[in-house]
Amino acid sequence: MDRIVRVNMTDLTTRIEAVLEAWVPLGGRALTSSIVAAEVPPACHALGPNNKLVLAPGLLTGTAAANSGRISVGAKSPLTGGIKESNAGGTAAKALAKLGIKALVVEGAAKDDKWYSVHVTKDAITIQEETELVGKGNYCLVNQVQARYGKPVAVVSIGPAGEMKMLTANVSVADPESHIRSAGRGGLGAVLGSKRVKFISIDDSGTPPVMPKNAAKFKEAARVFAQTLLDHPVSGQGLPTYGTNVLVNILNEAGGLPTRNFTSGQFAGHDKISGETMHDIIVQRGGTPTHGCHPGCQIQCSQIYHGKDGKYLTSGFEYETIWGMGADCCIDDLDDIAEADHVMDDIGVDSIETAVMFGVAMEAGVLPFGDGKGVVRMLRDEIGKGTPLGRILGSGAGNVGRIYGVTRVPVVKNQGIPAYDPRAVKGIGVTYAMSPMGADHTSGYAVATNILSVGGHVDPLSKTGQVELARNLNIATAAIDSTGMCLFIAFPALDIPACLTSLIDMINARFDINLTGDDVTTLGKTVLKIEHAFNIAAGLTKEHDRLPEFFSGEPVPPHNVVWDFTPEELDAFWDF
Amino acid sequence: MDRIVRVNMTDLTTRIEAVLEAWVPLGGRALTSSIVAAEVPPACHALGPNNKLVLAPGLLTGTAAANSGRISVGAKSPLTGGIKESNAGGTAAKALAKLGIKALVVEGAAKDDKWYSVHVTKDAITIQEETELVGKGNYCLVNQVQARYGKPVAVVSIGPAGEMKMLTANVSVADPESHIRSAGRGGLGAVLGSKRVKFISIDDSGTPPVMPKNAAKFKEAARVFAQTLLDHPVSGQGLPTYGTNVLVNILNEAGGLPTRNFTSGQFAGHDKISGETMHDIIVQRGGTPTHGCHPGCQIQCSQIYHGKDGKYLTSGFEYETIWGMGADCCIDDLDDIAEADHVMDDIGVDSIETAVMFGVAMEAGVLPFGDGKGVVRMLRDEIGKGTPLGRILGSGAGNVGRIYGVTRVPVVKNQGIPAYDPRAVKGIGVTYAMSPMGADHTSGYAVATNILSVGGHVDPLSKTGQVELARNLNIATAAIDSTGMCLFIAFPALDIPACLTSLIDMINARFDINLTGDDVTTLGKTVLKIEHAFNIAAGLTKEHDRLPEFFSGEPVPPHNVVWDFTPEELDAFWDF
Repeated sequence: MDRIVRVNMTDLTTRIEAVLEAWVPLGGRALTSSIVAAEVPPACHALGPNNKLVLAPGLLTGTAAANSGRISVGAKSPLTGGIKESNAGGTAAKALAKLGIKALVVEGAAKDDKWYSVHVTKDAITIQEETELVGKGNYCLVNQVQARYGKPVAVVSIGPAGEMKMLTANVSVADPESHIRSAGRGGLGAVLGSKRVKFISIDDSGTPPVMPKNAAKFKEAARVFAQTLLDHPVSGQGLPTYGTNVLVNILNEAGGLPTRNFTSGQFAGHDKISGETMHDIIVQRGGTPTHGCHPGCQIQCSQIYHGKDGKYLTSGFEYETIWGMGADCCIDDLDDIAEADHVMDDIGVDSIETAVMFGVAMEAGVLPFGDGKGVVRMLRDEIGKGTPLGRILGSGAGNVGRIYGVTRVPVVKNQGIPAYDPRAVKGIGVTYAMSPMGADHTSGYAVATNILSVGGHVDPLSKTGQVELARNLNIATAAIDSTGMCLFIAFPALDIPACLTSLIDMINARFDINLTGDDVTTLGKTVLKIEHAFNIAAGLTKEHDRLPEFFSGEPVPPHNVVWDFTPEELDAFWDF
Repeated sequence: MDRIVRVNMTDLTTRIEAVLEAWVPLGGRALTSSIVAAEVPPACHALGPNNKLVLAPGLLTGTAAANSGRISVGAKSPLTGGIKESNAGGTAAKALAKLGIKALVVEGAAKDDKWYSVHVTKDAITIQEETELVGKGNYCLVNQVQARYGKPVAVVSIGPAGEMKMLTANVSVADPESHIRSAGRGGLGAVLGSKRVKFISIDDSGTPPVMPKNAAKFKEAARVFAQTLLDHPVSGQGLPTYGTNVLVNILNEAGGLPTRNFTSGQFAGHDKISGETMHDIIVQRGGTPTHGCHPGCQIQCSQIYHGKDGKYLTSGFEYETIWGMGADCCIDDLDDIAEADHVMDDIGVDSIETAVMFGVAMEAGVLPFGDGKGVVRMLRDEIGKGTPLGRILGSGAGNVGRIYGVTRVPVVKNQGIPAYDPRAVKGIGVTYAMSPMGADHTSGYAVATNILSVGGHVDPLSKTGQVELARNLNIATAAIDSTGMCLFIAFPALDIPACLTSLIDMINARFDINLTGDDVTTLGKTVLKIEHAFNIAAGLTKEHDRLPEFFSGEPVPPHNVVWDFTPEELDAFWDF
């Protein structure tokens, strides 16, 4: 039977609890946000003892359901000041699910300056003092932890950035190849660092697979579900072939590829960093163009990218990273960006926040636009080592703007705006403004409908229909994030009715319940409202549901459009 | 007749306007806050072209009224994100008043990277490109500007910190000796820097004194008023003798002297930095123990402090600076603190924000507690030169906390908490929490009644009566700040009825109107409500009217008291 595990860093004790009745039907983001909202005082210091970091697999994690292995990480965010859920692939979600751990809650704060690790097995949860791996990067850490236990245990960790409580620090999760995936956004690695937990290792040895209550019904639904992922052109062809980086050329063509710190929507060097170019480089150097971030992934949008020497350089090399270091920083050398990606994974910083930050830092004159080598050097020698400049850069785009007096700072709720210009792709702009997560494309990916014509088409340059689109997508995403599913199932879910019905069938078969489509929508709405209420109690207001001033005043080429929503139009997002 | 002068930095034009009917009875803070609230979009970027910086003398400035020469500086604050008024002595207020300039508004933003100065005479307002003094400190700047014009023109300027748009940057005002006074709080120097105005020089040559409409009535009221300043023990004896620094020993005795980044209420080295010690050092070295910050000052709480070599070291050497660099940073060498004060004046940073920031930076391990030489070195070589570390330190206590992951960060609305521990002096804590200005002792100086028994006595350690006390003092202060009067007239005003009546008589005689005491209270209330409404529209909420979490969780010795107001108790502040 599922349990909640608590790791108390104040008195270094652990506790196993039954799951509250109300939390039984929840997983992933629904559960992390419910626990944070119930137990964390909204006004607390995010790096103080009253914050909690919650890890939760999804409702279907550990079953044979395709793409069900994402892990949700939740807490009050030190970056946004609001509630946060960030999810990632890797092997941790499956291991927790197999161990019957519905959520692992790290709470309190160590009273001394020691570092600790947490080891979870089917028999015990142990807190141990850690000395050997303190200061180490994630790549080294994962290798050494797995060597220590003599097997590929799941690992959730922080790099040096998390130890230094930098606001860009992510929570890293080892993937099936012992490479690094990231719950990147919102500085959750700083929260784990504030608890002085360097890593959590999870050994699911001796546990059986998660068995659905109605195995036959589950198997049939899982088959249908998997087929819809294959049938949709985005999840079945585009993503497996080119990965998420297929978007560089698409967004450039659409004039929505934020370039040179959001001063243009097109990047002259787009071909050099595109998914098509990347695919060719990977194949040519013997990398892996098609790869899954977690066990059971069928979409396989990830990849392993080799350097010029034919050796591993990075993996999970996503569009948003390549856009950010590429177009937004005007770097057109994919190897420089790949090296930056590797270093970011290793020191443990969010590649979106860090890339947006470098765009602002370049505008401030800290380094020139286009200086890929400079970015890698600053990542390694400044951020990674916590020099004063590294501390500045590691504190995110908003802080760099404040420190250098830059007025063009693309953030919402102090979180960097990702890879789609909100003036030219207005639906995603509504998501950036309104999501309780701060600027986050994954919260309600209106790019699908604005640019990819998935789930219909809404003109990206017109305000018409965007708030409704973003609202519906944010609700649906909150529900999907609660299943533990990869968000990319949303592409077939938006176009192929059997995708969503089979997903619900799987959940029903897993727990022997009778959810309807309406129930799922209700779950999404409930999650959003819980998160919104937390943020309001934490001091965020309607004024924080706005894009920065410059988007309204500076037309972005080539369409020369501005951000033109009224406050009233935006606030209608919450009418549900 | 009074006029409003506008300096538009976008098109480098100036304009002289009649005063709006509604603004005729306003001066000082009432006028700066009214103009900012009417003309600055609350959600604008504080360092962008839509913010405005307003300079305004008070209602009685330029007359023979004692202590009437403060200048108010207003804008949206880049530090707090809310409205701001900060006032200072110096000669600028009197010069503006004699020129009939009720407010000087700097608006827009230069489109190029040049620096400018503004020169104001009775004949013209001129904007000139400035090259010679860019990068210069305030001391050098004032000397050179006065040399350039061949006379002691009034000077309002920014130092290097303001040029770099640091959030600790103040607006500096030359005093009668061409030394430096500061409108310190809220980063208003960064606003002037964002307009690329290095200094404003004001030459009042050829203008007569400001003549009250009813000269005889004015003269009699001014006499009575001046007598009350002499009669009160604080304004007549304590302040002239020991300056504001008389408070070190008093607050230490009361257990409310924040020490070692607000972890204790008493400082072992208090005697070494006390007003009494300082007085002896000043006399012994041939300094000036009793000195006025502006023409017409009768209280003379300021002083000129010489170094060991008997030469000028600093002036306007206030309790809050000495407390902050002293007790809060555990520095017990008054010469080190004096040198720090000189450097802060020269580079143009707020000595309160900077001192609170150093306390946080010391807790973060940036330098050791007690390292006075290190503080001076970092001020001069890091902040003054804008190195990465200097950028961090120059961005204020809140940002230093964010960058180093410190949880004990004494700020409200991101502005450093001054020299009175809110747990042990609860009335001032209410002011810190509730003032629209952010943490600011001068907004409602409950220390007077809690500690000095001026205006009655309210037990500093009890919650009883504190909200009402703070509310009344905030209302009264908003009114006093609007007259252009030195705040220290509040001491006699609280205890000697003739003080307030003669002040009102002077205003009535000056303008030939019939204000009552109630009108003055209404003015104070109106100013506060205008400011509060601006802040709400800018995105500040009730949650920003709170002290940081640690004040509730950490008892402060020696009384071992915590901050224990409920949200409801605090919010009652606004019930008027």
